[in-house]
Amino acid sequence: MALCEFDLIRTHFQSAATARDDVRLGIGDDCALLCVPGDRELAVSIDTLVSGVHFFPDTDPYALGHKALAVNLSDLAAMGAEPAWVTLALALPESDSEWLEGFSSGFLSLARRHGVQLVGGDTTRGPLTITVQAHGFVAPGRALRRDAARVGDWIYVTGPLGDAGLALRMLLEGHAGALPESLRRRLERPTPRLAEGRAAVGLAHAAIDLSDGLLADLGHVCRESGVGARLDLHRLPLSELVAQQVRDAAAWDLPLASGDDYELCLTVAPEHGRALEGRFRELGASLHRIGVVEAGSGIRCQLPDGGLLGPLPGGYEHFRNG
Amino acid sequence: MALCEFDLIRTHFQSAATARDDVRLGIGDDCALLCVPGDRELAVSIDTLVSGVHFFPDTDPYALGHKALAVNLSDLAAMGAEPAWVTLALALPESDSEWLEGFSSGFLSLARRHGVQLVGGDTTRGPLTITVQAHGFVAPGRALRRDAARVGDWIYVTGPLGDAGLALRMLLEGHAGALPESLRRRLERPTPRLAEGRAAVGLAHAAIDLSDGLLADLGHVCRESGVGARLDLHRLPLSELVAQQVRDAAAWDLPLASGDDYELCLTVAPEHGRALEGRFRELGASLHRIGVVEAGSGIRCQLPDGGLLGPLPGGYEHFRNG
Repeated sequence: MALCEFDLIRTHFQSAATARDDVRLGIGDDCALLCVPGDRELAVSIDTLVSGVHFFPDTDPYALGHKALAVNLSDLAAMGAEPAWVTLALALPESDSEWLEGFSSGFLSLARRHGVQLVGGDTTRGPLTITVQAHGFVAPGRALRRDAARVGDWIYVTGPLGDAGLALRMLLEGHAGALPESLRRRLERPTPRLAEGRAAVGLAHAAIDLSDGLLADLGHVCRESGVGARLDLHRLPLSELVAQQVRDAAAWDLPLASGDDYELCLTVAPEHGRALEGRFRELGASLHRIGVVEAGSGIRCQLPDGGLLGPLPGGYEHFRNG
Repeated sequence: MALCEFDLIRTHFQSAATARDDVRLGIGDDCALLCVPGDRELAVSIDTLVSGVHFFPDTDPYALGHKALAVNLSDLAAMGAEPAWVTLALALPESDSEWLEGFSSGFLSLARRHGVQLVGGDTTRGPLTITVQAHGFVAPGRALRRDAARVGDWIYVTGPLGDAGLALRMLLEGHAGALPESLRRRLERPTPRLAEGRAAVGLAHAAIDLSDGLLADLGHVCRESGVGARLDLHRLPLSELVAQQVRDAAAWDLPLASGDDYELCLTVAPEHGRALEGRFRELGASLHRIGVVEAGSGIRCQLPDGGLLGPLPGGYEHFRNG
């Protein structure tokens, strides 16, 4: 294989890269050397995307580069951390310059938008697999954790639920042609809610990003915090297309149990709810109150007619077993 | 697939793990939260091992867990850094509890030996691919870099060369039965030279770990430093088995161009050579002077009879093109 680790990374990833003052040594040596501010904790998260598992093999490489970084920055957002550096480990079946050009453009474009520098990487031959580690800063003791929800907290999400799931369903069912571009972008080009996460620091108790679906991810928060939750389904923010699906099928799977939306779910004491909403208004960011943290365990879903959502369909297995 | 990311990691990786005071939050949230000492730079390195590319699919999982961590710790060693934390991203074709038990045992056993804590991870379904990021500390400005070799420096290596390459060759040629256990261990269970790297801080100019072979890796140092080098082949430390191969084939490919030895290569000003040798004697660590940094570019290899090694065979391509 003609891939030379350093040449490859340098060609495609160094030209248009962010250059930060806190990077003493970037790509090209055995390690990167980095300076963490003395008054900050380091937040790190590592995630892998595998071709055929997390994305279609023919996904536009620009979108894939964007998404590979976005899902990691989303983890920083969920802790309220400020992003700083990323590393990238890329296994590729062949050295495809055109693919790499697209992938690196999507990756670096999002990195620049958030002042993030790519500081290290590894490329190797293998089935297409993308692993990214994101590094950010957070003031000591101020990170938004999963285990910090308290009974009585209001539950918020930062944007519509189920769009990515609907897009994925349409692609899997062969309706790519009918897929609106706006919906495709929700699946392929998720927006990490970094400003939103930082705005919630000091006000929110718990936070998580919605990668596996609302019930699964809020379920993590409930379990780690030793609490339950009630969701008011009529409050869920839904795009018109997802709302239509919910009405047509009389089923809530899409907004409750489909993944990949990468919105944040926050829990906030009621006395801080208005302050949080104010901060989000200043940001021009959306915020929707969808329920409340309760004593006990598990998540109850209140239907618009006041009844409770019945037995959970198969799509909820992940949550029920998790 | 029955894999649940957190359960899987918790079961196999948290039970016997190191617990460090500087980890505010480990596995289980969106990010780990870590404290870097105020007077240290953070050194990070990420590496991927792919089944069928970097290891045989039937490699003993304990050895594989060891090696996946060892090759990353070796990068820290090459900077003179003190190891602290690692993250692990694992793509697995199926949830195989026995395999995971072996893999995690090998991984955690080496981690404990060096006081390293696993702080985060991701597991997913996919072709067997292992990505590890290692994190360590180094005093500001004191890291051993590739670009710091100076003309006149003595060149050292920390142990015998070509053992891993010979073991790999025997396995590829179907001679597994004749492979001595000591040689197999050199391929499958490399020792990261962490104490050696730290002992060289303040004395050595440049350092690199030998993952791709002496010529390739020393070639990186030469290129980054804008220098050349002369190697005295009769000084190369060789195990008896590799020395035999060199004699039989009258060829130096194994010690010069085979990878995976994970010894360190150091360059040191002659006036600090004795001090470095003294420190290594105190450690009980081996150190072999094998050549000298010269002005110019490229690497000349002096044969035991005083002549120069002729045209480089195919095995050197990586170096010549790199």
